[in-house]
Amino acid sequence: MVIEYDGTSYHGFQRQEKAHTIQAEMEKQIERLTGKKTTVCAAGRTDAGVHARGQVVAFDTTATIPAIRWTPALNAFLPSDIRILESVEVSRDFHPQFQAVSKHYSYYLYREKNGQVFYRNHALCTTESLQLEAMREACHHIIGRYNFLAFCARGSTAKTFERTVRQCCLAARGPFLRLDIEADGFLYNMVRIVMGTLLQVGRGKIVATDIPEIIRSRDRARAGPTVPPQGLYLASVKYPSGPD
Amino acid sequence: MVIEYDGTSYHGFQRQEKAHTIQAEMEKQIERLTGKKTTVCAAGRTDAGVHARGQVVAFDTTATIPAIRWTPALNAFLPSDIRILESVEVSRDFHPQFQAVSKHYSYYLYREKNGQVFYRNHALCTTESLQLEAMREACHHIIGRYNFLAFCARGSTAKTFERTVRQCCLAARGPFLRLDIEADGFLYNMVRIVMGTLLQVGRGKIVATDIPEIIRSRDRARAGPTVPPQGLYLASVKYPSGPD
Repeated sequence: MVIEYDGTSYHGFQRQEKAHTIQAEMEKQIERLTGKKTTVCAAGRTDAGVHARGQVVAFDTTATIPAIRWTPALNAFLPSDIRILESVEVSRDFHPQFQAVSKHYSYYLYREKNGQVFYRNHALCTTESLQLEAMREACHHIIGRYNFLAFCARGSTAKTFERTVRQCCLAARGPFLRLDIEADGFLYNMVRIVMGTLLQVGRGKIVATDIPEIIRSRDRARAGPTVPPQGLYLASVKYPSGPD
Repeated sequence: MVIEYDGTSYHGFQRQEKAHTIQAEMEKQIERLTGKKTTVCAAGRTDAGVHARGQVVAFDTTATIPAIRWTPALNAFLPSDIRILESVEVSRDFHPQFQAVSKHYSYYLYREKNGQVFYRNHALCTTESLQLEAMREACHHIIGRYNFLAFCARGSTAKTFERTVRQCCLAARGPFLRLDIEADGFLYNMVRIVMGTLLQVGRGKIVATDIPEIIRSRDRARAGPTVPPQGLYLASVKYPSGPD
């Protein structure tokens, strides 16, 4: 299934004891629909407050509901902040995370003083002036295959820190500044640390041409701070030839 | 003060017993700041779920805080879904509702299937196809001075139903369709009934050229349904020469 959700009132995707999560909500409603317990796997386990426009999830079921009927059936049970956009039947060995070829995240900044009340849960609101050209130059230095340990939060359980960033660019559109970043995989908090580092570049506190040296240092302390979750969206996930 | 708020979690502007309202929240925080109880008056008493981008409020105070300092001082106490944009000292007889020359409301439709989770509290989400040209023609018939009883919800305490609509237009912008309507005053639910009537025109259920006859009928049953509150914004309020 391709799903979208507003992560504002959830403690992230992954099921946890006594916390409201996307996974728990989906599993509860699938059980209501089919009468059977199931486990839902996702392409990316988004954190608390993080949103999704194109998360991909999968689960096993013996229910005889045709794939196309799952979308309206499950949407009728789910709360309005989680929506199924598309559902297809996949082979039994499909796993939305392990078979993904790349993931695309967006991070939104809202840059006007007026209107922040409407975007406070869906963008990072800031009116500080930023040197966009320097930030764009910094983006170019993020693209490539590197060890991104300097852009990984402590506590990560990743076995390797090499990732290939295929796209990293900033687009200004009306009151928004949007970072789009696509990679074969992301380390824990990597997009939020990249955005925090780009902001430091925009403020003149980090020089764009220092990015390669920051990557090489593998030193988390040299990159910028982790920006808050509400500006982050899992935009889409790519598979070798569609989700199946 | 010019203020903006996200009305999602409020039971409207006006203070009520045991309900979370904008007025009660503002009065509570002003009391925290000054140590004195006060009553806040507004240009328009928005309903539950309705938002404001440029609501105007006023209150009496003996506090010696300079006008310009009120904005940061009160914002420090207010929750993040209410923001003071501007504060000026006005004459003692200023009343934000009675001295207003006109008010401008906007109503947003969000017209895409994807992304509704992010706009469900801030627009009416609908993917039905609408005849925009017919809706625009209907807008022209709303402009003018008329008795708008057909566009007034039951239970109104208004003494007269004559209002002058100065502007009424629809703008399509990306996934949004926005109604902008400006008048010297509005009847209870008037903007939401105008929008509901325009939607019926867009669906072909009311003919645009029937609008003058619907107005003349003064019959609420002939106009369209009242659309839900979350798409409605009090955009701005005009005074003879600024708020003072």
